[in-house]
Amino acid sequence: MPTRVIVWGENVHEQKNAVVRKLYPDGMHATIAAALNAAEGIEATTATLQEPEHGLPKGRLEETDVLFWWGHAAHGDVSDEVAERVQEAVWSGMGLVVLHSGHFSKPFKRLMGTPCNLTWREAGERERLWLTARNHPIAAGLPDHFELENEEMYGEPFGIPEPEQTVFVSWFQGGEVFRSGACWTRGAGRVFYFRPGHETYPTYHDDNIHKVLVNAARWAHNPAPRVADPNAAPNVPVSAALEPIEQRGETLHEEGEEGFR
Amino acid sequence: MPTRVIVWGENVHEQKNAVVRKLYPDGMHATIAAALNAAEGIEATTATLQEPEHGLPKGRLEETDVLFWWGHAAHGDVSDEVAERVQEAVWSGMGLVVLHSGHFSKPFKRLMGTPCNLTWREAGERERLWLTARNHPIAAGLPDHFELENEEMYGEPFGIPEPEQTVFVSWFQGGEVFRSGACWTRGAGRVFYFRPGHETYPTYHDDNIHKVLVNAARWAHNPAPRVADPNAAPNVPVSAALEPIEQRGETLHEEGEEGFR
Amino acid sequence: MPTRVIVWGENVHEQKNAVVRKLYPDGMHATIAAALNAAEGIEATTATLQEPEHGLPKGRLEETDVLFWWGHAAHGDVSDEVAERVQEAVWSGMGLVVLHSGHFSKPFKRLMGTPCNLTWREAGERERLWLTARNHPIAAGLPDHFELENEEMYGEPFGIPEPEQTVFVSWFQGGEVFRSGACWTRGAGRVFYFRPGHETYPTYHDDNIHKVLVNAARWAHNPAPRVADPNAAPNVPVSAALEPIEQRGETLHEEGEEGFR
Amino acid sequence: MPTRVIVWGENVHEQKNAVVRKLYPDGMHATIAAALNAAEGIEATTATLQEPEHGLPKGRLEETDVLFWWGHAAHGDVSDEVAERVQEAVWSGMGLVVLHSGHFSKPFKRLMGTPCNLTWREAGERERLWLTARNHPIAAGLPDHFELENEEMYGEPFGIPEPEQTVFVSWFQGGEVFRSGACWTRGAGRVFYFRPGHETYPTYHDDNIHKVLVNAARWAHNPAPRVADPNAAPNVPVSAALEPIEQRGETLHEEGEEGFR
Repeated sequence: MPTRVIVWGENVHEQKNAVVRKLYPDGMHATIAAALNAAEGIEATTATLQEPEHGLPKGRLEETDVLFWWGHAAHGDVSDEVAERVQEAVWSGMGLVVLHSGHFSKPFKRLMGTPCNLTWREAGERERLWLTARNHPIAAGLPDHFELENEEMYGEPFGIPEPEQTVFVSWFQGGEVFRSGACWTRGAGRVFYFRPGHETYPTYHDDNIHKVLVNAARWAHNPAPRVADPNAAPNVPVSAALEPIEQRGETLHEEGEEGFR
Repeated sequence: MPTRVIVWGENVHEQKNAVVRKLYPDGMHATIAAALNAAEGIEATTATLQEPEHGLPKGRLEETDVLFWWGHAAHGDVSDEVAERVQEAVWSGMGLVVLHSGHFSKPFKRLMGTPCNLTWREAGERERLWLTARNHPIAAGLPDHFELENEEMYGEPFGIPEPEQTVFVSWFQGGEVFRSGACWTRGAGRVFYFRPGHETYPTYHDDNIHKVLVNAARWAHNPAPRVADPNAAPNVPVSAALEPIEQRGETLHEEGEEGFR
Repeated sequence: MPTRVIVWGENVHEQKNAVVRKLYPDGMHATIAAALNAAEGIEATTATLQEPEHGLPKGRLEETDVLFWWGHAAHGDVSDEVAERVQEAVWSGMGLVVLHSGHFSKPFKRLMGTPCNLTWREAGERERLWLTARNHPIAAGLPDHFELENEEMYGEPFGIPEPEQTVFVSWFQGGEVFRSGACWTRGAGRVFYFRPGHETYPTYHDDNIHKVLVNAARWAHNPAPRVADPNAAPNVPVSAALEPIEQRGETLHEEGEEGFR
Repeated sequence: MPTRVIVWGENVHEQKNAVVRKLYPDGMHATIAAALNAAEGIEATTATLQEPEHGLPKGRLEETDVLFWWGHAAHGDVSDEVAERVQEAVWSGMGLVVLHSGHFSKPFKRLMGTPCNLTWREAGERERLWLTARNHPIAAGLPDHFELENEEMYGEPFGIPEPEQTVFVSWFQGGEVFRSGACWTRGAGRVFYFRPGHETYPTYHDDNIHKVLVNAARWAHNPAPRVADPNAAPNVPVSAALEPIEQRGETLHEEGEEGFR
């Protein structure tokens, strides 16, 4: 069974900005999907903001193992309904890989529960990514460090929950550092944030970046069956208790009643 | 400087249900606040759903060190605006202690980013809480285990992010277990979830529970000045870089422009 | 490439105690290895305390993906040299699955850095394991809870570092709870502790236990090449710095000198 | 009650090396202790390698809240007995702050369970420490970043367990990054590693460093009574079970027997 990926692209700057269009004539999402499709065992398609339901109808998410998310200029244009749908799909077991400026996207902020803020500078400076979790699956095949000659700077403090694993930390020429690759679990789904990928630079044409994207798709893929209702909070009646007990004390709920939400 | 606490109570069942009213004639929030006020260095007041802005106007939260939250029947009646305000106050440094059925409250779900679901049974069965993080500040003065003779059961799997520290795990007479005390950091604020506290039982009159509540208030109090804007994502212009760099490559943003959100 | 497993057994009680010998006539290690060998993609062999170098010469560990460890009566008879060798193999990328009374084994204590103590009772009471990390790879194919009708009790507080993931929590008939399945990373290796497995009960003949063992072997297998020297602390001379710098200030070390240890 | 601190210094290079002696004429330990004593509520004394039992007899550790550890050239000269004593004191509740080259000290390696290795360069280059956990107690009163004009470089990957909180990440002029401030819990004790402090530079005369040291002493101080025997693994006989159970199945241990170790 291949890993079924959707690469979601905001697809705004590719349309409006000549620099971005020249680097990514078919859109950044298409370049990223092509890099994933070049790897064994991954089948990547794309979706964009402009499609109905942003290209992410419920049925499509149910048949997706990992969603990649790149957005920047139009976070506010993503509907709350789709953001919630993505969040629930992750809880059910779908993986999510959030790229670069996606740190401020609705799905990522909802899943982290934190501001996800940072400092930034668009100066085309050098970024060097260092491995901090050697032999982590997302680092497979990578050297201990690699460079991107031109990138946007993101600086600490980065407003995220303490990562379950920090895989990369970046050094920037202008003097900042940043936790560039970080992992979390949310429900049955895995979430990976990966920092590089400013749209005016050729980051998504870089071989090491391709390796990270491929590794991240594989790592984020949970092969277990999707959790049917990730919000279920079932009542276990006294009669079904695993150890014999008797009803005692006062009660609020009638036998078999639904709980409050 | 005392720890300034607000105990927020939904205050619904106390009004509607004779059992609850008898146990907590002034409301559960009043009982909890009294237990906190009996401790040295804590000044607790109350707020309820029915007050304007649910008793939580912005200015009041700014002068609050720790907010306790008990809700059950009316999570949906809490306005999104107040839920977001609480979330941002936590990011700024306010502590949050979420009690019992507050696991499904809007502020807790927003801060966790997970479904926060569980299984449950209202049978008045015995609960025994075990310490799993001995000598954690929230366990100060407690024995290795203590009992509540009548409680509602909450069972695993509990849909939370992996706790930063698990302080208590509960044993239930009917055969379930539950991670009953768990800690997280969100921005500059600390969050503690504490399981016991069903409204038809005298849990908030129990001495060990009082100890946990007092300890939790102290632990959740971050004495640092509140972060002014927890969402700030400032641009650092090239001219202000800490190491000398020059602008290179193509740019999207004009010098000094605000970032996208 | 199969997952190459060694099941290490202390093999003491099987020789001395008629009850244990009847349950595990070829040794507990043989029963565990057979369960692993029944799974696709796993090749399990055994090693015992009594063999030269306890059956764990350096070359053998280098060709092992995951080591299972069961010991109880003779932790002190394991040589420090072999314990250190196991620890370093984990740092290099070998997985380690520690079973039951192995919580007090030398390799586990060395890798955790904590006392690894607990309370215990050998009463043949019922144990019920609950999933706390739904859809974790180690829980694949398991129900939300399962039972062992007769087991030794282990109780909290369990003296371990906060787990990276807690996969199982046990309920005991006599009133205790225990974090029964817990995961850590140590260097390039993964460590899983799994509680059940007292030698006077047929635990290792149980189907759900077999599933956990198989899942644990797969989870703990790090497919990356083994780290050659997990203790290396290389000097990076000024001339090899990634950014141009000049030697400044006073120095202790001569150019190219080894660091202190 | 003040926080009672011992600053342990290896005290080797101060005796042998003119550069170090000039910077720290009374020893680095004395300079660090003076910085701590200048803070309200801290009483710091010193101990050195050369004293009997390295200045750390059992009785003295029992009356110590936090031990600071600086060693470099003579890790191997620290007796295993004292290293184990320090480890057990931490398990009992003593805090430990490990400085700079102490990453390779016996107590730190024992408590981490990992290689604790890194890359290094002694070039007097600029180090800039960034806060990654804003409003963490150890960061109290510090700006978002601060600099040390001359420091030894330590580079990733740093062979530590994933920190419970990463408080600082360093940027180095030569192109590396490092997790410079990291927190763990071990038993009832708290452990903080803090990177800066090479002996040929005036790091321990820096005001921001003083703030970190003072904050670390306060954070690492666990006010709870010391755990009497952190290795205790008590048997709970059937007759003392919290829920009524009967002895079932076969047993290995006689009633009331000690467990194996």
